This record gives sequence, structure tokens and C-alpha cells, in this order.
Amino acid sequence: MSFSEKILQGDIRSAARLMRDIDDGRASATEELKKLYPHTGRAYIIGITGPPGAGKSTLTDKLIEAWRQKGKTVAVIAVDPTSPFTGGAILGDRIRMNRHASDPGVFIRSLATRGHLGGLSGSTNDIASVFDAMGWEIILIETVGVGQDEVEIVRTAHTSLVVTVPGLGDDIQAIKAGILEIGDIFVVNKADRPDADRAVRDLQTMIEMGNHGDWMAPVVKTVAQKYDGIPELMDKIEAHREFLCHPGRLAHFEENKSALRFTELLRQRLFLQVHEKISQGDRLARTVQAIARRELDPYTAVEEILKEHLEGGG
Amino acid sequence: MSFSEKILQGDIRSAARLMRDIDDGRASATEELKKLYPHTGRAYIIGITGPPGAGKSTLTDKLIEAWRQKGKTVAVIAVDPTSPFTGGAILGDRIRMNRHASDPGVFIRSLATRGHLGGLSGSTNDIASVFDAMGWEIILIETVGVGQDEVEIVRTAHTSLVVTVPGLGDDIQAIKAGILEIGDIFVVNKADRPDADRAVRDLQTMIEMGNHGDWMAPVVKTVAQKYDGIPELMDKIEAHREFLCHPGRLAHFEENKSALRFTELLRQRLFLQVHEKISQGDRLARTVQAIARRELDPYTAVEEILKEHLEGGG
Repeated sequence: MSFSEKILQGDIRSAARLMRDIDDGRASATEELKKLYPHTGRAYIIGITGPPGAGKSTLTDKLIEAWRQKGKTVAVIAVDPTSPFTGGAILGDRIRMNRHASDPGVFIRSLATRGHLGGLSGSTNDIASVFDAMGWEIILIETVGVGQDEVEIVRTAHTSLVVTVPGLGDDIQAIKAGILEIGDIFVVNKADRPDADRAVRDLQTMIEMGNHGDWMAPVVKTVAQKYDGIPELMDKIEAHREFLCHPGRLAHFEENKSALRFTELLRQRLFLQVHEKISQGDRLARTVQAIARRELDPYTAVEEILKEHLEGGG
Repeated sequence: MSFSEKILQGDIRSAARLMRDIDDGRASATEELKKLYPHTGRAYIIGITGPPGAGKSTLTDKLIEAWRQKGKTVAVIAVDPTSPFTGGAILGDRIRMNRHASDPGVFIRSLATRGHLGGLSGSTNDIASVFDAMGWEIILIETVGVGQDEVEIVRTAHTSLVVTVPGLGDDIQAIKAGILEIGDIFVVNKADRPDADRAVRDLQTMIEMGNHGDWMAPVVKTVAQKYDGIPELMDKIEAHREFLCHPGRLAHFEENKSALRFTELLRQRLFLQVHEKISQGDRLARTVQAIARRELDPYTAVEEILKEHLEGGG
């Protein structure tokens, strides 16, 4: 039986190996992904993002519990803020979720943020595709941070949760605005803290004033630690799923997602191929030295490379 | 007098226009940047990053004040977490810095995070180059958030400050680890809060255990609001500058920075040129639809494009 056939039959060990190959950027992984792709499109993908300290991991943990109670299988992709240099992972949050480790209906996979030359969202999508092809029903993608990578990742989820907490500073206000349009549901976690109702009102005001379409993002209060508000949050997720399961909307969503994925992959592969070519010999090193000495500007240097490597002279 | 000549003579109005053109991704901006590039390399560039709520903007404000007292001109590039969709900027922090608005020795420029197809760090570098060529002495780059973009931006600064605050949760621990290697100086701001000394000790332990080279990053306590610790922080910045001003180190730094910039620009321009070509006609739309319908996988689709557009078939 081939590698991808084993994965399609749900073999965890083969899936884990493919995910490692994806992480390592191996060319062989692409061949397997090609075979898996026709089997994707069945999982429901949920993105969870928000600022540090909002309690996203605890919330993820409780959502796993809630779906398990409904008999759904749940795969989690946790995008870790590891170093771009050493790749050292911090596992505190992951350990907390280990109570699901003995449950065969839960699979948690951490994704390092290092080394993804083509962008983190590409690798996250690839790994989500593996889970999807295997038949996992719910895929939770948890990202820490609020950068462009996170936004890209969350844009490919069916339902995006944006998690915040009451009583944070000015920057949080700005971030709330920054991710306002990507949230399908907003969660004010740690809602037993003072100012929770104010945080809810502020968010509601921003959502109402914002560029919402047919779906007006609800704001849900939770105290994830105590499971408070989790059933209400599950109801909202279900409501958004129903909203999305309208033929026109779903087709539009799938096309958007395909366009994002295709352009991302194109960007990555184009660069990798050309970079590999110019890394042979000392061309790249000489160019970089000339730029450092201000003998050559980087714009002209890049134009020369494009002329040489693009069909028809770029 | 040409546009770039005016900028080289310090004309603010022309510089602001070029920065808008950079933001808008205009081809004409590249031609001006080529002319400015040989005049760069004189400014001292400082990156300020850290999690939301750490008080980076207040710290930036006080550092401006400190350099102005030393008679230095200061340009600030504030990378705003605006929406990737609507581009709406939140100006709260910026307004606070407006007390420098009447000072001709201070120039504050906000950079939206939207629309930078080639990545935010490319545009930030371009704008820093404009300030540099104009003769601004200190360039402060402030980024909100802790994503990959922010890491890239801060890697191109001579001295990187990583700002944190006492008493944040688990995620912060992880983020501290993630940006440990990019910090030349760590700042524990709001150090009049409980647990400040513990935060300092934790950071020092992580730094000592980490992969430090000849420079061991110091940890400075500040209460930026009250100007507490700012003189000490200025001393540490000066010390790091002296450390870096060693011929071998500076050449190494400049080459690293040039390599980052060149590869970033290459990635961006390659994609833009190929994307523009395939966007003509309905090729792109048909490809995306086929991917959405699972009739074609994105990996094969990209390989076909590479074969067509790269010299020698990719």
C-alpha cells in the first residue's frame, strides 16, 4: 500500500511522517499532497486567534471537549511562536492539552514557525489538508499573535474565532481593529474579570460600525477555565456553519481559499527555484557584497535577476 | 531639481510623497529609491518590538525626547496593525506622540500593514532608506505584535529593543523565547508593577541560557511614563552601538542586512511579474475554480505555471 493510501485509511503514523516532511520542506511531501488533495473539502476548519494572554489554548482545550461530547473527531494545529533562529519550542500550553493524549479521537500537532520559507500559512494549509483527507471532522487551527501570518492562516478557516480579554491596553484596541474583519465570532474570555461587559460593548460597537456583510459577528463571553460560555460559543459556531452552508456562499468561500492557496504556493515556489539557481556559484554572494558596499542597489540587482530567469526577460 | 535631489536636500514634502508612492507600490518609487540608495548607510536604526500592551509607544516617545536633548534628529516609522481588508488605521498611540509635531527634528511616519504584497519589511526598509538618505540621524522602527513580519523588520535594525511588562501570562513566556535571539537589549517596562524583578531575573536567565555570542543582551527596567530608566536605556543603546562599530562586525551586519533585503525584494518582484502575466485573460480564474472544485490540485497548478514562465522550464 502506498504512503498516501495509508494516510487515506487513517494511519496516524504515516500522517505524522508526512507532516514532518512538510515541516522540513521536502519535495517528496508535495507528491503525496497531490494525491491527497482530491479527498479534501470534508472537514470543518475553525481558526482561533487573538493577542497573547487571551487564553486561546484553554479555550481550544474546552472546545475539543465539547466536540468530543458530540462524538466528533478533532484535530488541532497549534502554530507555536518558536524562534526563527534556534527553533526551540515552548511547550507549556501543549502540555496542558495532554489530557486528550489517550483519546484516539483527538490529534494535536504543533507547527514551528521557523523555516517555512514560503510562509507559515502554506504549511498550515498543507497539514490541514492531510487531516482533512484522513477524514478528521473538526480541524482547529490555533495561532498565537496577531501578525500578517496569523491573518492569512485564519482567512482559510470556515469559521474564525477572535479571542480577547477585558482590560488590556491601547495596543489591544488597535489589534482588535486590525482583526475585526477576520472574526466571524468574537470571544471575550476571562469574562469574570472586571470590565468584561465594557469589552463586549466596545467590540459590538466596532463590529456594528465596521464593514460587516450578511453575517454580523456575535460576541460571546466565556470563562474557559470553568467551561462557562462554551455551550453558547458552540451554538454560535454552529450558527455560522449553517450561515456558510448556502450554495453561493460556500462556492465563494472555496474559490477565495483556493485563490489564496494558489498564489501563496506560487510565490513560494517561484522564489525557491530562482533562489536555488542563483545560489550556485558565487553570483548571490557577489551581489550581496556589492549591495552592502553601496556599489549596487538592491532594486537594480533584482531586475537583472528577473531579466535572466523569467521567460521573455521578465 | 529632480525629485530625488530634493529629497537628498531634506525636502520633507517630497519625501512624504515618495513614501506614499512606496506604500501604494508604484513602480516610479523604485526608480527614486535606486537614486537614493548610494546615500544610505549613515543613519543609526533602532527597532522596538514586543507584545501588545507593553507600552512601546510611550517608550518611543521618551526615547525621541532623549535623543532630541542630545541634539540628534529622529525619524520614527510606526508599523500599524491596521486591517488587511479596509486599511483603517487606529491613531491613538500616534496622537500621543503629536507633542513632537512642531519639532522639525522629529518626523513620524505610520506604515499601514495592508497591501504590502512583498511583505511589510520590504516597505519598512524602503522608507527607512528614504530617511537615511535624507540625513536623519536616528531612525526608530516601532512594530506592534510579534509575528514573523516583526522579526524580519527588527532584524534589519542596528540595535533591537524587545519590550515586555511584568506579570503577563503563559503566551508571553513563549513569545519571550521566540524573540530572545533578536533582542540586543531587553526592556521591562511598567517596572513599578509587582513582579518586575522577577520578570528581569527570568529574562536574564533565558538570555544566559540562550545562544548569545559576544554580546550578552542587558535587561533594563523602565517606567517610560515617568521617564524612569530612560537614561540607563540610552546608555545601553550607546554601548551596543559601540560594540557593533567594530570593522568586522559592522561589515558582517551590513552583508546580512543586504542579503535579507535582496532576497525579500527578489521574492516580491518575481511573484508580482508572474502574477501580472497570468492575471491577463482568464487563466488565473480558471485555475482557481478548478482547484476549488478539486479537479486540479494547487501543487500541480503551480508547477505548470513555473514551467511556462521560468527560463529553461523552471
